[in-house]
Amino acid sequence: MQSADNEDDGATRHPTWSSAWELLLPTASAPPRQRGRVLQGALRDAVRSGRLAAGTRLPSGRALAADLGVSRGLVTEAYEQLTAEGYLRSRRGAGTWVSGATGSGSTGAASGPSGPGRVGAVPAGEAEPVCPDRSPGAAVADFTPGTPDLSLFPRAAWSAAHRRAVARLPHRALGYPDPRGIPELRAELARLLVRRRGVVADPARVVVCSGVAQAMTLLGAAVYGTGQRTVALEEPGSPEHRELLAAAGLTAVPVPLDDDGPDPVALAASGARTAVLTPSHQFPTGTAVPAARREELLRWARSVDGLLVEDDYDGDFRYDRAPVGALQGLDPERVAYTGSVSKSLAPGLRLGWLVVPERLLDAVVARKRLLDLGNPVLDQALLADLIARGEYDRQLRRCQRAYRERRDALAAALAAHCPGAAVTGIAAGLHAIVALPERYGPEDAFLARARRAGLAVRPLSAYTWAGGRASVRTPDGRVRLVLGHAHLAPAEIGRGVAVLGRLAGD
Amino acid sequence: MQSADNEDDGATRHPTWSSAWELLLPTASAPPRQRGRVLQGALRDAVRSGRLAAGTRLPSGRALAADLGVSRGLVTEAYEQLTAEGYLRSRRGAGTWVSGATGSGSTGAASGPSGPGRVGAVPAGEAEPVCPDRSPGAAVADFTPGTPDLSLFPRAAWSAAHRRAVARLPHRALGYPDPRGIPELRAELARLLVRRRGVVADPARVVVCSGVAQAMTLLGAAVYGTGQRTVALEEPGSPEHRELLAAAGLTAVPVPLDDDGPDPVALAASGARTAVLTPSHQFPTGTAVPAARREELLRWARSVDGLLVEDDYDGDFRYDRAPVGALQGLDPERVAYTGSVSKSLAPGLRLGWLVVPERLLDAVVARKRLLDLGNPVLDQALLADLIARGEYDRQLRRCQRAYRERRDALAAALAAHCPGAAVTGIAAGLHAIVALPERYGPEDAFLARARRAGLAVRPLSAYTWAGGRASVRTPDGRVRLVLGHAHLAPAEIGRGVAVLGRLAGD
Repeated sequence: MQSADNEDDGATRHPTWSSAWELLLPTASAPPRQRGRVLQGALRDAVRSGRLAAGTRLPSGRALAADLGVSRGLVTEAYEQLTAEGYLRSRRGAGTWVSGATGSGSTGAASGPSGPGRVGAVPAGEAEPVCPDRSPGAAVADFTPGTPDLSLFPRAAWSAAHRRAVARLPHRALGYPDPRGIPELRAELARLLVRRRGVVADPARVVVCSGVAQAMTLLGAAVYGTGQRTVALEEPGSPEHRELLAAAGLTAVPVPLDDDGPDPVALAASGARTAVLTPSHQFPTGTAVPAARREELLRWARSVDGLLVEDDYDGDFRYDRAPVGALQGLDPERVAYTGSVSKSLAPGLRLGWLVVPERLLDAVVARKRLLDLGNPVLDQALLADLIARGEYDRQLRRCQRAYRERRDALAAALAAHCPGAAVTGIAAGLHAIVALPERYGPEDAFLARARRAGLAVRPLSAYTWAGGRASVRTPDGRVRLVLGHAHLAPAEIGRGVAVLGRLAGD
Repeated sequence: MQSADNEDDGATRHPTWSSAWELLLPTASAPPRQRGRVLQGALRDAVRSGRLAAGTRLPSGRALAADLGVSRGLVTEAYEQLTAEGYLRSRRGAGTWVSGATGSGSTGAASGPSGPGRVGAVPAGEAEPVCPDRSPGAAVADFTPGTPDLSLFPRAAWSAAHRRAVARLPHRALGYPDPRGIPELRAELARLLVRRRGVVADPARVVVCSGVAQAMTLLGAAVYGTGQRTVALEEPGSPEHRELLAAAGLTAVPVPLDDDGPDPVALAASGARTAVLTPSHQFPTGTAVPAARREELLRWARSVDGLLVEDDYDGDFRYDRAPVGALQGLDPERVAYTGSVSKSLAPGLRLGWLVVPERLLDAVVARKRLLDLGNPVLDQALLADLIARGEYDRQLRRCQRAYRERRDALAAALAAHCPGAAVTGIAAGLHAIVALPERYGPEDAFLARARRAGLAVRPLSAYTWAGGRASVRTPDGRVRLVLGHAHLAPAEIGRGVAVLGRLAGD
């Protein structure tokens, strides 16, 4: 049971953690008249950020007030306010606890309701898109896709690499960074991407960034700089990409998918000269673009002197065969490639990369410099060290094994509890597309039953953003779900699917 | 001797470092026809980023070719190309070495010529602005301001904090971060800034960012969002601030300084409603804004429903008395406060903070989310840990002692070698303003002599950006220099000033 793991883990590694309320809710230090607001703010932060796990029982008002050295009234008031806001729940006799998903390895966004400004929301290429109908949580299982299993983060290896890096780096390496990234990491990434993904990556073309979201911001600015004002995006696809590119001044034009991926005819008709694609494992439908279609897409890019942006968000995780090589390898001057460690190590590291066509390199680097001057140098040195030692490859194999096991558990559970359900999309990634038998439809009624049953499930239709909802709600009337499985223990998957199986309509 | 320190340090901590040419210049792994370009690119990177220190002697072509497993011709060609570009120097019999400043603790930007797109350049609030007449380096001493002494970085404490953080953080804390920063760090920063700088900092108003440069980008976007299109900047001041705000769509209007700081009359006449200021220690003139002028500036901000942006880039380092409190403390709703660890720990950490008026908070957080989703969580946990343990305060005291000692060394050396020179500006910060006696002028001729003598010095006039150059070249005709001393060992300061003293005109 992973959520139990997490608790044990936290507890054994840091016995006083769960009682460190002063650390978690620093209140007494605030000026007396601000204490109430400070306490409520800190409590809200703790839930949003996941530091206070969903389901965590809070101390009694009296006990917490004593811990924090504030009046009991302040605590009671804070509990009432946050209960009203939905962050906490309480029941007479049962006390007060954190509402939301059972937080096993789940993100802040998943373990509490999103706050104003959707704090904690994350881009689709990297994780789940922001969903208006996002449920506050799931008591039984949260199948929201996009989160890796954070318990797989190689803490010992990361710690050892940090020790080595801090001891080894010359003083001057701690100065203002090269906005493109440190040379060691760019060289290691170039080797890694050539070897694992068939990317043609000259270190001079590699730009270290803070993840796929920032990559979209950087490329969006560079593309805008060439005078373009539109960009083609897959539909269904990532609402977050659309938002990031809109902030760069680019209007998204939807390109529908057929069985082979983005429709080249629609692409040609879009009028755009830049397209963002997920060719190795389309997000969210899970299809891979075959060779012939790849050539068609590249022909389009050349014909309009355009650019394909390849979001390789989970290209390393294919279970039935060797991963499909990156599209970028076919034409490095027409494809900008981006990926990150968010699925393989941890999203919290905020570390990713870009491989950029020469004509866009200066603009991307100049923008990176404006945004943050460059990524933190120690983190870069750590990753370079892990890659050089082969530990990053070991980590990828470890994740691949774990995620394949969970995908198999999902398929087995569906066969057992939901006869007639079909898992579609290639065997890859951290989520699967499940087409439920007709008896589960229609979609809205099914989703309502799932919520009531304590399941967080995301329908495929939630990933449409340009009126394609109807096209995704296929005529066969079957409900299609995007089920994230990578962050759930096989036992949780089984429990969740067992409940799901009982949700057929009458 | 610090530069010797650095070398020893690098060598003793990592014996094979200096011979790890394969790691530094990964070339053999590239496709044969690309190897020449890859080698030249990697060599250029290594110099630019400072990984190859100025003055480092390179192996013979034959030896490096053997190390890298490439042909000797490739290496010779690379040496010739980079010598032509000014990154390397060679002399018959003396071999080939890296040109540029004696790299003691100096940044990549300082230890090699800036490349295209001014890679390695850094914002003035954080370090020296980019200068058109930037000299490729200095054989004797580099007084370029803005760099802290990187040898003061507390490696052991940082390593220990990382060990604790990695062991302690619950799995879910490694997920997608809260774009505002982790609650622990925001709470610790709030306490620290109240205590040390008199900032009124509710954790709910603190936003963790990657430094002052990103703070300007975030605030620039928020201000632009309110419909403003101009921003008032100090003149002389930071060309980098101007560039960062221009990228956000804001046009800079210069505000001249008098003895008390920014001229309120000029500010009122500027038509701007936002002004970026350095009230604790004006950059670069080194004056502090007295109480009365602070009130005038705030009155202006209130009268135009405007905003003062307080860049507190080195407010912690005042030598003759307790640091001046932050302007923000006087009116938290009219002042946005920003600072970073770039001067106190290391610029390479890319870690800073903002305290934002409530009306701008959502816009700043939304922009932060678009730029990078938030700062890396482990780095944040480390800093929170150091602050909570009082180690950050110890580090500040350590830096303060070191920098005061160097400032005193500078003053003493000037008295000994340059009679009549006057150190102006308050006793604070990492640089000093030195007015040379008339016999050293005129400026252009003096700067040429300094370059020839192997000194890198920056005239005050280099920090004017709106035609104020004449006003700074004061009628008394004295040359005014902005001398960075924090990154230099007292012995180096002495050597450099001794040379400077001999540069009077004839």
